[in-house]
Amino acid sequence: MSEFRGYTGKSLEFLKNNRITVGDNVKILADLTYLGIIMPRYEHSDDSHLVLKLKSGYNIGLEIEKIKKIEITSSPKKNIEKVESVEKNPNLPKILLLSTGGTIASKVDYRTGAVTPVLSAEELNSSVPELSKIANMDAEVLFSEYSENIMPEHWLKIADKLKEHSNSDYSGIIIAHGTDTMHYTSSFLSFALAGFPIPIALVGSQRSSDRASSDAALNLIGAVKFLIDCKTNGVYIVMHQDENDETIACHFGTRVRKNHTSKRGAFQTVGDDPAFIVVNEQVQRNARNNFFKVKEFQPRIKINTKVALIKYHPGYDPSLLEKIIEMNYDGIIFEGTGLGHIGKIMYGNVKKANEKGIFLGMTSQCIDGRVRMTVYESGRDLLDLGIIPLENMIPEVALVKTMWTLGNFQDRNEIKKIMLENIASELSD
Amino acid sequence: MSEFRGYTGKSLEFLKNNRITVGDNVKILADLTYLGIIMPRYEHSDDSHLVLKLKSGYNIGLEIEKIKKIEITSSPKKNIEKVESVEKNPNLPKILLLSTGGTIASKVDYRTGAVTPVLSAEELNSSVPELSKIANMDAEVLFSEYSENIMPEHWLKIADKLKEHSNSDYSGIIIAHGTDTMHYTSSFLSFALAGFPIPIALVGSQRSSDRASSDAALNLIGAVKFLIDCKTNGVYIVMHQDENDETIACHFGTRVRKNHTSKRGAFQTVGDDPAFIVVNEQVQRNARNNFFKVKEFQPRIKINTKVALIKYHPGYDPSLLEKIIEMNYDGIIFEGTGLGHIGKIMYGNVKKANEKGIFLGMTSQCIDGRVRMTVYESGRDLLDLGIIPLENMIPEVALVKTMWTLGNFQDRNEIKKIMLENIASELSD
Repeated sequence: MSEFRGYTGKSLEFLKNNRITVGDNVKILADLTYLGIIMPRYEHSDDSHLVLKLKSGYNIGLEIEKIKKIEITSSPKKNIEKVESVEKNPNLPKILLLSTGGTIASKVDYRTGAVTPVLSAEELNSSVPELSKIANMDAEVLFSEYSENIMPEHWLKIADKLKEHSNSDYSGIIIAHGTDTMHYTSSFLSFALAGFPIPIALVGSQRSSDRASSDAALNLIGAVKFLIDCKTNGVYIVMHQDENDETIACHFGTRVRKNHTSKRGAFQTVGDDPAFIVVNEQVQRNARNNFFKVKEFQPRIKINTKVALIKYHPGYDPSLLEKIIEMNYDGIIFEGTGLGHIGKIMYGNVKKANEKGIFLGMTSQCIDGRVRMTVYESGRDLLDLGIIPLENMIPEVALVKTMWTLGNFQDRNEIKKIMLENIASELSD
Repeated sequence: MSEFRGYTGKSLEFLKNNRITVGDNVKILADLTYLGIIMPRYEHSDDSHLVLKLKSGYNIGLEIEKIKKIEITSSPKKNIEKVESVEKNPNLPKILLLSTGGTIASKVDYRTGAVTPVLSAEELNSSVPELSKIANMDAEVLFSEYSENIMPEHWLKIADKLKEHSNSDYSGIIIAHGTDTMHYTSSFLSFALAGFPIPIALVGSQRSSDRASSDAALNLIGAVKFLIDCKTNGVYIVMHQDENDETIACHFGTRVRKNHTSKRGAFQTVGDDPAFIVVNEQVQRNARNNFFKVKEFQPRIKINTKVALIKYHPGYDPSLLEKIIEMNYDGIIFEGTGLGHIGKIMYGNVKKANEKGIFLGMTSQCIDGRVRMTVYESGRDLLDLGIIPLENMIPEVALVKTMWTLGNFQDRNEIKKIMLENIASELSD
């Protein structure tokens, strides 16, 4: 029954009556005329829709009752169901795709319905055939984890693998990654591989590829175009800019957050436009973009994870900070209020932490804007207690940067210096 | 020298040459023509600007070199320097202002330059004289704290004081409050005083009143207009909508965050427009506004502060959660990743917390969007471990609601029920 995979009830009957099976290229007349491929369906499917993959790579759901006419234009089922070997075109640039898991790096097995990792360039090209027209894709699976299970150890693995390719002939490297913690990973790579000679794009998707409106293919295509045409290096997150399919946004890996749980345009550059956008196949640079990048590639792939993030709030019990001190943490990032404040109730423990030599950095839970601790008395008190104001560094980025700095540098003054130095556009004007 | 308070060098000379002193009403011809009052200056002043308070209440800085002409229109210095008693107009609605501290509730003492709390309706009216034209203002100082030092005990004090006025003839009540933690306070009041018969507006300012471009006066005037004309109840935060002075935004107290460290439009309703705006002296309701409010006033002014907020991130050490369990916390709010996830590494301790009867709620560090824990396997695992998904409740609000719920209800099932019930618009569609 794989030819009607996932279709039941009314939708199954509709397909049978029209002698159409999954994988057929069809032309559908409904409110508009649609050209595309009938996609299989999976769990939680209703029986009143067909799912159609449009040429753009976008999946849509069409209500059967509204379909006036459907006809087969061709039946290239085998192209979909079977892995085909893709001929390489020596004139195209080379792109490497490293997959780490998450929806983006998965391919639905049309026989079993299971989501499996993309294993080869061939499989990748068969799920997003547009890629083979713009680049010669190599692919490698590093591991397969949902991103909430990505740990700092995984960051090290990814960085080590990238380092191996620092002298390769790739035009750029894609890291397929779950979206939940993609911005933490992009931060670490930005610091650990600052100055890496070719651009790196982390790409995810917010909708799995078997669902209508999956963004996986467009994000991948956008990322490949970006890597080929951006004419710069650095670590970026490349995702839909918003709900439409016109624009793919390329965010600096250290200035970006997942700001929405489910929207396709979930990632945003904090306080600015994205560094680049890909629109109408053109890569456009943000004119105001004067972000900073180090020139020389000097990998530093070590980490110290004894860093805590404290989001201060009314009712925060300072004995929690006391426990962190007792547990021999080496760094604490505060997500303070407003311009970078925490209540007076914390001062005693902060003093103790400072005396113990723990690195203390201040960011703001406002997320946008700049920490300024000289405006109010309370900020000045905190400066006296040894807390370093981290400018407009995003709290999550400050956390990762502290882990990285404490892993690669020992001297206390040097640590402070590095934390305030712009390594990978984590600070902006 | 109080007549030239704060002016030095070039600016002092300029004032003397033109026989102008602080408090004079002047007409200034520069790039445009300005009408306003010469304001005193305080610390960190340069000597190249005059500060002028416009009729709108807005302070601007004017460069002396660009002033072509300056003339006195009147010299009502005494109105500014001396507290005058304000005649009440029995036809105007009554508004109560409770002050708790922060820049907004302060008045610059023109003799000493010190920032002191507003002590009386008279002093309030003399610093924002526009208020007496639209309302009879009563004022009371509850306490005077920067908002980073506001603790849950202060929330209780404010709530108790408001409760005293639940049967008064006020049209509404203003709470002047520092901006840093204003949204935590507004959340608590929303729950503790759900159904309070008259509207309550928390008002702050992002610029102290002695600085050019202070937003204090306009926010207060907007709040009074809102309270008089909104024709509803509830707890709101009333602040500039953006950098211009056209629009004052009125946010539901449970759907709002301080999202920028310094901008005047720092507060934003998460995922929606503000509930109301005041523009051109008109109060406009957001048409899409179908937020929820309980009908009956039933104050519940208790709190249990043994609630921890855990922002999960790669590298989070589960032994921190272990400590929280050991410290006998009664509730934990997770700021998970994406749709509401935390790493598998946490499962063992989460299970333990659940078995101990600790309330476990899930929100998202994305801030915008809705937690949905049935999409991925990992979310379903967390549901099985007893974590309650808190829909689209903002993490900070979920924290405060948990403190409030655990303070006022005992039964474990009732606590879960209340946490998912829409008490004060903390949940939306």
